Amino acid sequence: MDRNDMLAALKAVQAGDMTPEAALGLLVQAPFEDIGYAKIDHHRQLRNGNSEVIYGAGKTAQQIAGIVARMIDAGSENILITRMDGEKADFVAKSAPLFYDPLSRVGIANRVEKPLVGSVVVASGGTSDLPVCEEAALTAETMGSRVTRLYDVGVAGLHRLLSHLEDLQSARVVVAVAGMEGALASVIGGLVDCPVIAVPTSVGYGANFGGLSALLSMLNACASGISVVNIDNGFGAGYLANRINRMEGIRQ
Amino acid sequence: MDRNDMLAALKAVQAGDMTPEAALGLLVQAPFEDIGYAKIDHHRQLRNGNSEVIYGAGKTAQQIAGIVARMIDAGSENILITRMDGEKADFVAKSAPLFYDPLSRVGIANRVEKPLVGSVVVASGGTSDLPVCEEAALTAETMGSRVTRLYDVGVAGLHRLLSHLEDLQSARVVVAVAGMEGALASVIGGLVDCPVIAVPTSVGYGANFGGLSALLSMLNACASGISVVNIDNGFGAGYLANRINRMEGIRQ
Amino acid sequence: MDRNDMLAALKAVQAGDMTPEAALGLLVQAPFEDIGYAKIDHHRQLRNGNSEVIYGAGKTAQQIAGIVARMIDAGSENILITRMDGEKADFVAKSAPLFYDPLSRVGIANRVEKPLVGSVVVASGGTSDLPVCEEAALTAETMGSRVTRLYDVGVAGLHRLLSHLEDLQSARVVVAVAGMEGALASVIGGLVDCPVIAVPTSVGYGANFGGLSALLSMLNACASGISVVNIDNGFGAGYLANRINRMEGIRQ
Amino acid sequence: MDRNDMLAALKAVQAGDMTPEAALGLLVQAPFEDIGYAKIDHHRQLRNGNSEVIYGAGKTAQQIAGIVARMIDAGSENILITRMDGEKADFVAKSAPLFYDPLSRVGIANRVEKPLVGSVVVASGGTSDLPVCEEAALTAETMGSRVTRLYDVGVAGLHRLLSHLEDLQSARVVVAVAGMEGALASVIGGLVDCPVIAVPTSVGYGANFGGLSALLSMLNACASGISVVNIDNGFGAGYLANRINRMEGIRQ
Amino acid sequence: MDRNDMLAALKAVQAGDMTPEAALGLLVQAPFEDIGYAKIDHHRQLRNGNSEVIYGAGKTAQQIAGIVARMIDAGSENILITRMDGEKADFVAKSAPLFYDPLSRVGIANRVEKPLVGSVVVASGGTSDLPVCEEAALTAETMGSRVTRLYDVGVAGLHRLLSHLEDLQSARVVVAVAGMEGALASVIGGLVDCPVIAVPTSVGYGANFGGLSALLSMLNACASGISVVNIDNGFGAGYLANRINRMEGIRQ
Amino acid sequence: MDRNDMLAALKAVQAGDMTPEAALGLLVQAPFEDIGYAKIDHHRQLRNGNSEVIYGAGKTAQQIAGIVARMIDAGSENILITRMDGEKADFVAKSAPLFYDPLSRVGIANRVEKPLVGSVVVASGGTSDLPVCEEAALTAETMGSRVTRLYDVGVAGLHRLLSHLEDLQSARVVVAVAGMEGALASVIGGLVDCPVIAVPTSVGYGANFGGLSALLSMLNACASGISVVNIDNGFGAGYLANRINRMEGIRQ
Amino acid sequence: MDRNDMLAALKAVQAGDMTPEAALGLLVQAPFEDIGYAKIDHHRQLRNGNSEVIYGAGKTAQQIAGIVARMIDAGSENILITRMDGEKADFVAKSAPLFYDPLSRVGIANRVEKPLVGSVVVASGGTSDLPVCEEAALTAETMGSRVTRLYDVGVAGLHRLLSHLEDLQSARVVVAVAGMEGALASVIGGLVDCPVIAVPTSVGYGANFGGLSALLSMLNACASGISVVNIDNGFGAGYLANRINRMEGIRQ
Amino acid sequence: MDRNDMLAALKAVQAGDMTPEAALGLLVQAPFEDIGYAKIDHHRQLRNGNSEVIYGAGKTAQQIAGIVARMIDAGSENILITRMDGEKADFVAKSAPLFYDPLSRVGIANRVEKPLVGSVVVASGGTSDLPVCEEAALTAETMGSRVTRLYDVGVAGLHRLLSHLEDLQSARVVVAVAGMEGALASVIGGLVDCPVIAVPTSVGYGANFGGLSALLSMLNACASGISVVNIDNGFGAGYLANRINRMEGIRQ
Repeated sequence: MDRNDMLAALKAVQAGDMTPEAALGLLVQAPFEDIGYAKIDHHRQLRNGNSEVIYGAGKTAQQIAGIVARMIDAGSENILITRMDGEKADFVAKSAPLFYDPLSRVGIANRVEKPLVGSVVVASGGTSDLPVCEEAALTAETMGSRVTRLYDVGVAGLHRLLSHLEDLQSARVVVAVAGMEGALASVIGGLVDCPVIAVPTSVGYGANFGGLSALLSMLNACASGISVVNIDNGFGAGYLANRINRMEGIRQ
Repeated sequence: MDRNDMLAALKAVQAGDMTPEAALGLLVQAPFEDIGYAKIDHHRQLRNGNSEVIYGAGKTAQQIAGIVARMIDAGSENILITRMDGEKADFVAKSAPLFYDPLSRVGIANRVEKPLVGSVVVASGGTSDLPVCEEAALTAETMGSRVTRLYDVGVAGLHRLLSHLEDLQSARVVVAVAGMEGALASVIGGLVDCPVIAVPTSVGYGANFGGLSALLSMLNACASGISVVNIDNGFGAGYLANRINRMEGIRQ
Repeated sequence: MDRNDMLAALKAVQAGDMTPEAALGLLVQAPFEDIGYAKIDHHRQLRNGNSEVIYGAGKTAQQIAGIVARMIDAGSENILITRMDGEKADFVAKSAPLFYDPLSRVGIANRVEKPLVGSVVVASGGTSDLPVCEEAALTAETMGSRVTRLYDVGVAGLHRLLSHLEDLQSARVVVAVAGMEGALASVIGGLVDCPVIAVPTSVGYGANFGGLSALLSMLNACASGISVVNIDNGFGAGYLANRINRMEGIRQ
Repeated sequence: MDRNDMLAALKAVQAGDMTPEAALGLLVQAPFEDIGYAKIDHHRQLRNGNSEVIYGAGKTAQQIAGIVARMIDAGSENILITRMDGEKADFVAKSAPLFYDPLSRVGIANRVEKPLVGSVVVASGGTSDLPVCEEAALTAETMGSRVTRLYDVGVAGLHRLLSHLEDLQSARVVVAVAGMEGALASVIGGLVDCPVIAVPTSVGYGANFGGLSALLSMLNACASGISVVNIDNGFGAGYLANRINRMEGIRQ
Repeated sequence: MDRNDMLAALKAVQAGDMTPEAALGLLVQAPFEDIGYAKIDHHRQLRNGNSEVIYGAGKTAQQIAGIVARMIDAGSENILITRMDGEKADFVAKSAPLFYDPLSRVGIANRVEKPLVGSVVVASGGTSDLPVCEEAALTAETMGSRVTRLYDVGVAGLHRLLSHLEDLQSARVVVAVAGMEGALASVIGGLVDCPVIAVPTSVGYGANFGGLSALLSMLNACASGISVVNIDNGFGAGYLANRINRMEGIRQ
Repeated sequence: MDRNDMLAALKAVQAGDMTPEAALGLLVQAPFEDIGYAKIDHHRQLRNGNSEVIYGAGKTAQQIAGIVARMIDAGSENILITRMDGEKADFVAKSAPLFYDPLSRVGIANRVEKPLVGSVVVASGGTSDLPVCEEAALTAETMGSRVTRLYDVGVAGLHRLLSHLEDLQSARVVVAVAGMEGALASVIGGLVDCPVIAVPTSVGYGANFGGLSALLSMLNACASGISVVNIDNGFGAGYLANRINRMEGIRQ
Repeated sequence: MDRNDMLAALKAVQAGDMTPEAALGLLVQAPFEDIGYAKIDHHRQLRNGNSEVIYGAGKTAQQIAGIVARMIDAGSENILITRMDGEKADFVAKSAPLFYDPLSRVGIANRVEKPLVGSVVVASGGTSDLPVCEEAALTAETMGSRVTRLYDVGVAGLHRLLSHLEDLQSARVVVAVAGMEGALASVIGGLVDCPVIAVPTSVGYGANFGGLSALLSMLNACASGISVVNIDNGFGAGYLANRINRMEGIRQ
Repeated sequence: MDRNDMLAALKAVQAGDMTPEAALGLLVQAPFEDIGYAKIDHHRQLRNGNSEVIYGAGKTAQQIAGIVARMIDAGSENILITRMDGEKADFVAKSAPLFYDPLSRVGIANRVEKPLVGSVVVASGGTSDLPVCEEAALTAETMGSRVTRLYDVGVAGLHRLLSHLEDLQSARVVVAVAGMEGALASVIGGLVDCPVIAVPTSVGYGANFGGLSALLSMLNACASGISVVNIDNGFGAGYLANRINRMEGIRQ
């Protein structure tokens, strides 16, 4: 509810078209539906064209299916579900149309085609990072961005990365996914002029400490134009990449 | 040197306009000037309109002044110098026109006015975060972005933050600067639809551990659309904010 | 054994009603029963109306059942058992009347109704925090406090939280449960004037580091009136909330 | 601004006593005065009898003096200033009546006597913890609580602690301040039935890691009824202790 | 091989009773038997009356049984095997006489009675610490020390601990085992005059961080006379306790 | 592609033997084959005699078998596969000749004998470190180095280590593998004059923190000539040891 | 006050020689003198022959001098003051006879000769560890132990250590002081049969992390019979070493 | 003293040319001179051509000068002194010929020219890393290696690094020095076939945590052939680089 909505409500009170009590109710009423174990924000799709996203890890298959059902009833399309294991996906698929990618554990309920625009590059250093990459790529695609995947282009073999220089330099946003030492973000950051979103992954062992090495490395990247999301957070990177990719130009 | 430049050089060799040796030299020649203690990239301003930035912390006053002199000779304007203490600034100011902000320790040599466009909001929770805020704001302004400052709008007094809702919601990018528990990024992230760049600061004490608490908090922000830069890295946030702010729309 | 008891024993010795040896035995006698693998404090219920609490995680089903049996024999009611998995609960239920909540893994043996007083609010940011919330809520209720549950009111959607402002502001104590960035405690701390007990949870992933991010965030909360218990320690928060909720006014 | 204020404003609009635009202004108007480097909340004293508290560490002497002046102009008394070094205190004292305690670095501007009620015990293990203790004690006293100081009662000499058992057991709240291994909180927690606020201090060396050892120890305290504030946060403990101490009984 | 042995060998060379080559062989010959996956030190029992100890965690049942067989062949008695799970114990018991304690996972092969001397107290805070306690107690007993067990005497109920004051004060060494906040070591350290060996355990959860809280707490213990072994290292504590307990008086 | 290759290509363009477009393709063409889930570098064996190494942990059995098949087709021998569990090895062995060592989980596909040269010593402190040792030893052997294994020579029994002094002092490189306190690297570093590669292992428990204790210990080794690889990284140590072992003398 | 004292007091009450009130006062009276900023335990010297020790770091010169004065008045000799810088020592020396060692910053007030018995070895790896070594050595000597100093015997040059084997093997206790990788404790632990007290020091840099590397190394020492005190805690090691050194034999 | 020396001594005893007592003395005699605060190893130069190195940080100027004097008396040349600040250098220069480099704080006493052989490259990412680079370079040069310095070739500007590809690929060893994210080691590791010694530096701020980010990054480097020394340990890297650089070829 923004300033304009508030002013409209207040004018309705002034005009006698609304009681103060009703206006108050309106002002504090949250645009969500409470189904006991969750509060669903049905207005989100109206506002920005994307449905609310369901974080599957902490929910039972029943809860996910329940939320999906309510959202489809309310007209949502392309409902993104992250971190949902295969067993839960099987359950959800019984009651709703579901696309499911087992690698990234991403599900998309009530999927419909929509035009993809702009250019997001998702780059990664090794095959072990693919689940996180695909979470990012599918998220951005579901929200309307065109995605180019550049996988296995780690810094230990620079020629692999450099052979894709043109793809990188024509991107509007790059998502750089890397585990171990996370150097990919720095190297890409030095090659492109667009925003780079770095995603550290927990891939590695020993002094990797669950992704800490890549995280610290990326936060300390010596190239400019880089920012970082949480370890393994492909969704967050894809979501932000889509937001940046789809920015409009400055209106003069 | 991009793919087109390489092709042009190769065609010149084919046409007999250039020897292979010369082309080779070109291919491996870096576009920088080596002045012993640093290699200066004079092409940067031509490429993207911003001079190379000087990180002042690890350099002597003499080194900074030397680099500035070479860059001014090469035609650079609005040369940004970060983390330069007052004493060094005094020294540099002897040999070059210098704007200096003691709060953020930012210097701008050979400063010239240029039009500011778009809308970057820099928001912070407390007065102690101001040096980092100003580093971000001055960086973005120097690079051409219009900046709105919202200081002292911490989450412990939500009404302060909410009274600036309109500023926040009309921004193209928000830089959220906060120390202590870093909750500002999450709260702002839930209020806006534009990209949010979170800057943890080392402000605080005890279990703050030099900014670690705010850093972890921001990396774990439950709102979407947030990414994080290094602790106290106002420059990085301002640089990236400008890059995002000045994005053009997608060409169809 | 307090100062008065000591004085009474000493006077009995003086009066010849007790031998010095008996008094000594009394002075060092602990008010507990030793059943080999545990020492049970039967006096606790007499003292403050609550039975000793059984921490189920480190005990076998047999040990829990044994302790419960002795306590029921000694007249205990509403015996709280925390961190008891379902299998152990099934075993205990064979030999004692047991209420069991599988979500929070809390059991209450020999449960009896008692009046609930005052007002404790348990608030949480996401559905994944519910097990910890319920551990807190059931603990406080078992000990006699009236509890209001406000779940899924995370800071990424402030309107959800603000729509419950009245509940929050009429509470005598608030228990704020949150994982990830733990900002909920700070935001609630800025909205209420009563004590806030913050419970970080291990919900999250990556740089969450098992709850460390929320823990540090809450310890650094910029609002006043907040204190913190251990990660996932719903019991501790509920116990302390009950203690504060049931405080009497200052006697003049 | 609470629900009642909102309703009153809306009724005034309905009654034609206020324009919608004015009401809107009211709704979003924060009850603070903006003096450039800070926004002062003058309503706080009206609401709960305590002035806003000034955190002195991140502010210049000039800024502190400026805020104090505005607050005194607005009628504030007993203005608490924490973490203010002696030099700043000397400066502030030039323009405002100031009580200053160099040990705890606490200042109280425009101090007036007020009746102290209830019973807060501040206990500490060693003389090195005194600055933190006094910050807690002076904070609680400034806000109206009667404070008993039990210093140098560390667990390495239990008899010292036990000789004050009566003080401890008659307290409404205990603030347990300890560095090094922080065991004091656990031991006191086992001796009293009132809420215990544990304050870890950075006193110690080596594997103390700036207070981490005491912090972790207190978070893991095996006694119930204990919660923890940030390392060295005497103010936070005193503030919360006062809030709990002054609680009224439950109205039936 | 000590200085005397070296001198004896050299004299034998001088006397012509031994060739230089044989002496050299002797000097560098290690007193162990190499059985491929391990080198067994058969001289140890001769030297100090205790067989070499077998750390079972990193070895297969076959390897343990093989080492035990060789040691028994070489005349070893009371062969201590630590961290051996039940399955391995069953295997070992097929080929050698084995006492096995499933709680502490300690095995003793070829066990024979021997007189127990002196006084070692093993004290612990909670029933969850028992496996570590028993590892310590069985180790000390196997090596000849008389052990008194004081379990469930945590600091949250001081009276339990104080009721055993006489046992504690008559000990020659105390092993203080505690998880969570590890305060037991400090409190005992303040009550006794003998050496205290503190064993942090990994019992607990949340900010316990696998025993780190108890470890740091014990290293920072404010009482004197305390030293610490690794987390959960009951064996190390029992071994050292026996060594200290059995010290002879100073020969004048 | 080195400088000479670049010059050759450019001269071919000048001579009209190659079009600029073809040269460009050559310049950016990476010497790898892309098989979807991986990019295989077939030139590596030509360049330095060793095939590319397959890191088995993050790949499915099908992926490993696929890569092996392509490499054998391309003529690779002695293809090293690390961190491959037994089940995957069984699968791979169905379609390619495979040597497999279950202890170190190292596989060598298309193994052929080749002469072993020089002298690498792999030394370890305990039997639990053997898997890491064998990963190092097999790696170095597969790449052509002669390896001497010195196992179970930990510093707690110096005579075991000293009895192998001659082996150590005649080595060209020593790989020192140790968990727990990692002192082996320091002690060996003080006994030899050749490079020492230290490998910390995660063997141990408690304050070992997954190998951190040995890692920090080795990084802080007081002897000179020591460098460290990642925790449990036997492969990296063996690879580097082979590289150093096989160095040629300086050409005058 | 031990069990016997308690019984004596109770018998006096029974005999009418003491009122119950007086007995109570006795029972709770702590044997210390309260001088405001500290509570001094004058009975300690009577009990075990050593005065209370003054930790100088957290006290002012005035406070130290005050405590010393009271203790001398009460008859204390050989009053140990640790962590006292030279300036404070100068102040204290004005009012009391003081021996002061600037290297270890140890002071001994009212020093008197007393016979030294037994054998404590203090061994260290490098000259930088000397301050901690001397703190340990002076502490043990002040309390009556004969101390042998073996400095600069680090493991990087084993021959230095081995040349003192006889000293080590004839010790009753060894204090092993080492920074950096802390291997000295393990190596000594493998050479001797007496208790070894390991003292990690903060000497070093980089991944030493203020002594953490040596601390973890020593806690993980693979030799048996080793325990650890806090980083740089020479006093604690010397105190405990004296306690162990002066143990009497077991009375049959 | 090696096996041959031992045999020679034993034969002398056999031949009656030496008493057993003298031989024993020889066997345990360390080849060092004890000057009270240090034990100097004069045999080192004889053995491997390099004098013992003096770590200046933990020593007084007097101690350094004393050690240097003894070493010069004993014939040492090119005595390397690391971590010696300018003031100490001035003192030492009074009594011995001293070369001193203030940037790296390296001193070389009694410096003489000697031929430099082979090829060590020292590469770094930024000008702030120069002190560590020069410590490495001067160390390697002092010990006889020819060194090429490649400074300011960080990965954020790959063209700078690639323009030196020929230098890198012709090196026998590369020392890669980098702070911040430490990616330089990985990138260089992918470009060269010789051993790479990575030196993390503490250059950076925020989540750099004193060099931890670069350290972890380098330990996790995805390229092979890389090993790591301690943070800021330029000396260790230079020492090891010299050792590897000067390796002889394998004798057939």
